[in-house]
Amino acid sequence: MMTDKYQKEMQTKLTKGLLDMIVLDLLDQEPMHGYQLISRIRKSFGVSLGASTVYPFLDRLEKKGYLKSEWNLDSARPQKIFSLTKDGQTVLNFAEGSLNLIRMNMTAFNKVHEEQTPILVSH
Amino acid sequence: MMTDKYQKEMQTKLTKGLLDMIVLDLLDQEPMHGYQLISRIRKSFGVSLGASTVYPFLDRLEKKGYLKSEWNLDSARPQKIFSLTKDGQTVLNFAEGSLNLIRMNMTAFNKVHEEQTPILVSH
Repeated sequence: MMTDKYQKEMQTKLTKGLLDMIVLDLLDQEPMHGYQLISRIRKSFGVSLGASTVYPFLDRLEKKGYLKSEWNLDSARPQKIFSLTKDGQTVLNFAEGSLNLIRMNMTAFNKVHEEQTPILVSH
Repeated sequence: MMTDKYQKEMQTKLTKGLLDMIVLDLLDQEPMHGYQLISRIRKSFGVSLGASTVYPFLDRLEKKGYLKSEWNLDSARPQKIFSLTKDGQTVLNFAEGSLNLIRMNMTAFNKVHEEQTPILVSH
């Protein structure tokens, strides 16, 4: 089994799967433009995302009202700086709660008890 | 803000984003057929996935060598029972490690220190 390939594949898959949450979390730390976000994700999560993935993704989060943007006209090229809205902050909090619930429901993280009662998510 | 709607949306998004890992984890607990898996995911994660999502997904994981299947011909209808291969188990272990790394790199889960050194993922 080509261990590295599978490990890399999983890391990429999970990072993409959690991209909403990761982007909201990074922008909660500080407002950034798209390219900064791409390099932060590469540095912290080891996954290289293309501009064609990240830019439409940011637009979508803005349309949903989770992000707001402002043009920075001081740089050589105008840059759109994204930051979190109040709704974005609320959604980020939900996401943290959801991810914790998902982990608790996965036996992989929870091998202490033989029989684990699943934690029910209200729906 | 329609709190419930956003919470549900995030739960669905994260569950789908982590579906590889969730499916491998559930099948590591016990071999199951597709419909059993759908109802386990609904019960434990509060997310209803369609057969048109889950069946091709299982086929893909089988083609990758993470799952193997066997026909159960004892039931009224023949059922394909899926279980984890050794490679699937290795991938599940990687996924656990990756998810923990991702969480550690998200400040949302890590608000104790003001300045957090990002944990670098080898790549």
